[in-house]
Amino acid sequence: MKLQYIVFLVSIWATTACNQGKNAVVFQTDFGLKDGAVSAMKGVATSVDPDLSLYDNTHEIPAYNIWEAAYRLDQSIQYWPKGTVFVSVVDPGVGTDRRSVVVLTKSGHYIVTPDNGTLTLIEKSLGIERIRLIDEVRNRRQNSGASYTFHGRDVYAYTAARLASHTITFEEVGPEYTGGIVRLAYKQAHINNGVIEGTIPVLDVQYGNIWTNIPSKMILDAGVKYGDSIAYQIYLKDSLVHQNTAKLVHTFGEVPDQMPLVYFNSLMELSIALNMGDYSKAFGIRSGNDWHIQLKVK
Amino acid sequence: MKLQYIVFLVSIWATTACNQGKNAVVFQTDFGLKDGAVSAMKGVATSVDPDLSLYDNTHEIPAYNIWEAAYRLDQSIQYWPKGTVFVSVVDPGVGTDRRSVVVLTKSGHYIVTPDNGTLTLIEKSLGIERIRLIDEVRNRRQNSGASYTFHGRDVYAYTAARLASHTITFEEVGPEYTGGIVRLAYKQAHINNGVIEGTIPVLDVQYGNIWTNIPSKMILDAGVKYGDSIAYQIYLKDSLVHQNTAKLVHTFGEVPDQMPLVYFNSLMELSIALNMGDYSKAFGIRSGNDWHIQLKVK
Amino acid sequence: MKLQYIVFLVSIWATTACNQGKNAVVFQTDFGLKDGAVSAMKGVATSVDPDLSLYDNTHEIPAYNIWEAAYRLDQSIQYWPKGTVFVSVVDPGVGTDRRSVVVLTKSGHYIVTPDNGTLTLIEKSLGIERIRLIDEVRNRRQNSGASYTFHGRDVYAYTAARLASHTITFEEVGPEYTGGIVRLAYKQAHINNGVIEGTIPVLDVQYGNIWTNIPSKMILDAGVKYGDSIAYQIYLKDSLVHQNTAKLVHTFGEVPDQMPLVYFNSLMELSIALNMGDYSKAFGIRSGNDWHIQLKVK
Repeated sequence: MKLQYIVFLVSIWATTACNQGKNAVVFQTDFGLKDGAVSAMKGVATSVDPDLSLYDNTHEIPAYNIWEAAYRLDQSIQYWPKGTVFVSVVDPGVGTDRRSVVVLTKSGHYIVTPDNGTLTLIEKSLGIERIRLIDEVRNRRQNSGASYTFHGRDVYAYTAARLASHTITFEEVGPEYTGGIVRLAYKQAHINNGVIEGTIPVLDVQYGNIWTNIPSKMILDAGVKYGDSIAYQIYLKDSLVHQNTAKLVHTFGEVPDQMPLVYFNSLMELSIALNMGDYSKAFGIRSGNDWHIQLKVK
Repeated sequence: MKLQYIVFLVSIWATTACNQGKNAVVFQTDFGLKDGAVSAMKGVATSVDPDLSLYDNTHEIPAYNIWEAAYRLDQSIQYWPKGTVFVSVVDPGVGTDRRSVVVLTKSGHYIVTPDNGTLTLIEKSLGIERIRLIDEVRNRRQNSGASYTFHGRDVYAYTAARLASHTITFEEVGPEYTGGIVRLAYKQAHINNGVIEGTIPVLDVQYGNIWTNIPSKMILDAGVKYGDSIAYQIYLKDSLVHQNTAKLVHTFGEVPDQMPLVYFNSLMELSIALNMGDYSKAFGIRSGNDWHIQLKVK
Repeated sequence: MKLQYIVFLVSIWATTACNQGKNAVVFQTDFGLKDGAVSAMKGVATSVDPDLSLYDNTHEIPAYNIWEAAYRLDQSIQYWPKGTVFVSVVDPGVGTDRRSVVVLTKSGHYIVTPDNGTLTLIEKSLGIERIRLIDEVRNRRQNSGASYTFHGRDVYAYTAARLASHTITFEEVGPEYTGGIVRLAYKQAHINNGVIEGTIPVLDVQYGNIWTNIPSKMILDAGVKYGDSIAYQIYLKDSLVHQNTAKLVHTFGEVPDQMPLVYFNSLMELSIALNMGDYSKAFGIRSGNDWHIQLKVK
């Protein structure tokens, strides 16, 4: 009986031992996939612990585009389990004295990143619980001190792998940082006298859909219903670039091919598309803080 | 003795416990790799079971191109072990009442997909053993009901991960469906009076090779031998676009650089290439059901 | 006590059983990511052993470009743990009688590749300990004998997975080969009378940075110091294409945006960039053995 009990315990333990609660590591960069840079980061992580599961968010962030790094991080991290360690390396200031940090979000995710604006949107959405500065004396790949331009490999991948594999605790990352993070300027959507104003933070590039930062709640609370027609204007800075009217629908298939539609995207924010077409190309619309959208809801 | 026996059993068990017969999940989509959409699907799968092995078939299927989804699935699935769960999300009808299914092939593979034509070629090649409709009440990510445009994440990745990890059985996917699948119209290769006719279903895009749907068996059974010259005509609808003659060879290296050759591709279907060149670009040949090839074998 | 001891041993054993010392497999090809070819290779490897960890170096090597295969391999392999099995398939001679080999480097890494020049740089950097010819009778996927054009799938992925999973030993790959490997001609950097000459083997394509083959040691040993201005000329064959002067810095951020800088890249070789810009596009500079750089250091 006693023996069986122990066998049972060992069995349970052996099962959990496999993963041992190791957390996934998810990489995003502006490196592209044409060379071995992403591979070098994964090699470093695998050298720390060969049992880690390594994934990619995207490596096609446009070079140096911190805003898009912030957006892509914010787009995906919530779908990953608590404890997942994200590594974001869009790092035009590599080697300067910008802070290298590990952030614990209020949702229980970790983000290893230069503090250069990449955390702007996460701070609003998930919230930041704690920030630690990476102690590069302890948390830097051995013999990598001569290289100044690839902290993604030498510091961030290395630290993320050590954290995800429980080689170090969050506390052992380095000293706590209680100051504010670097924030990129951006406008939030707002409603005023029945006019909603938002921006086009990013395109759904593969399909050419226009993604705005206007939450579905703001639209629905203003009394707009599925099936209603919405008239909207799109501006680049102060110039009107495009205006159109389309129905708010649940799915693309509710309008004929090549017809415009308004819908809530997978982040539940107002978006505009041509069914089976490319809205961005058709009307020359791009994304960024200078691109505005305005719509009347009353 | 008894003790050693138990230790032995536990050891065996512990070893197998690691993988526990969990099946790989392989994703293909038309999402591209520029944003976090593929990552969100993998995050959902990892949330179901962190020990799953997640792979990619391709995410560069041209937007909305169901035909190519069917082809890329058919091209690769046979090389994966039985039990592997494929997820195919080329889903222009997302949110409409198109069926969401899990198919068990006669070869023992699973495919999670909208039933929109994606299964056209698999039905012919591997054969379909059983089809189940996804019960979206049970097999949908919690709190995802408000989103209508990303079933790949909320339903397909979630269901695939549950099936691959044995969280649910195939039966628990949902009710059996015994009707026919949606089939895309396509022509099969045929031989008539010594003339073989086929189509160009797809290009080997990276190299510009022309892949036809003519099986090697049809060519060889007609008496063509390696080393024979083959004259062929390529048509777009009814217009002759290109004609040429090339030797049937085993390998590219049998002809000089930039010379045409006819060979059997990795799927053992007739293909045409320029050694070290790009046949598609050189002669303006594309793929699709409107592209035909004709060759005389007697 | 005796019981506890055995339980302890089993526990240890169960933990290590998970990975069982299986080595990672890392793939690089010129296949691109638009079709299912990479997936087919991974399916074959997973069929050999579902517990293997499979990674990618890059699949975007320009078609048939063996030189770049050699470079990308050399760029990353050193960051992976000993025992990692690399598979490189840039194989324009597939199906001809070029050798198929597995190389053990002096650093303890394995490389499965056609011996067509891909090993040129590895031989210099890591050194080659032993070479074995792949015995294609034993180490070829079952029933794949009819296909002549996809050894990456049928032979290389299969053999790599068997080696990484310890299904076969290195000796069981096939007979030892003691002849020389195929070497691509290339020039090494040299210094003569205070003039350093090198080539531009590759671009840092994502950012447009110019990577040379001149090691940092050669520059620093010649007395150049960080902060010094360096004047350089770039030639295509014998024609001067571009000349400029820039400071040697640690990090991009030390010069204003769009200004040129000279730095040591992540491989510690001399490189040239425009801060936040694209040097290659700005000045029409490409890479390859015909592109030279010259700089005076005294």
